[in-house]
Amino acid sequence: MEKVNIKEKFDLFEDRWSPKVIGEVNDAYVKAVKLKGEFVWHHHDEEDELFLVVKGSLVIKLRDRDIRLEEGEFVVIPGGVEHLPIAEEEAHVLLLEPKSTLNTGNVTDERTVAELQHI
Amino acid sequence: MEKVNIKEKFDLFEDRWSPKVIGEVNDAYVKAVKLKGEFVWHHHDEEDELFLVVKGSLVIKLRDRDIRLEEGEFVVIPGGVEHLPIAEEEAHVLLLEPKSTLNTGNVTDERTVAELQHI
Repeated sequence: MEKVNIKEKFDLFEDRWSPKVIGEVNDAYVKAVKLKGEFVWHHHDEEDELFLVVKGSLVIKLRDRDIRLEEGEFVVIPGGVEHLPIAEEEAHVLLLEPKSTLNTGNVTDERTVAELQHI
Repeated sequence: MEKVNIKEKFDLFEDRWSPKVIGEVNDAYVKAVKLKGEFVWHHHDEEDELFLVVKGSLVIKLRDRDIRLEEGEFVVIPGGVEHLPIAEEEAHVLLLEPKSTLNTGNVTDERTVAELQHI
């Protein structure tokens, strides 16, 4: 059981859209991910997904509106809700979601990460 | 589905050792709590508990060592592990734990909060 310094974890990698596991709590992972640009519309059938911005800002487009998150803000996207994360500039984001959650949800594309790296 | 500004939530209350629910993700709550002083030795039988310091610093005493968390650092205390949070100065802490988790775990005392407030 070791403490985790969030900033130090983000310093360990450069690649974007590839969540790294930095913590494990019950049936969920805490993941660190760097985002820039536009992801892909997707949803997670059953799983809620928490996005917490630790650096930069992030827009999460929903089908009916946008949610803009600044540093120190989070939102929980409920299971089944389609969403599209967009970051104009690089954003550092913590994710909290079940261990079973795939980053692209119901969609498979070249950014799908099936094997998560633990850092 | 509304975003949550963590600092604004902490501005809504003054009482200590009384976690407030500020988010819900799958079977877990995200809670905000202000801590100062020493809590009580306790454990949670089955449930891991994540502590993330957002302001100040926090020492979590274990039976064999201490873990000191500064801003932007977290630790996950596994189920069954006895721990004692201590904050010399007021610390603002996010907790992530199952909805079923009681703040004092296996202990009941005057700081046990059975009915959680949602803010």
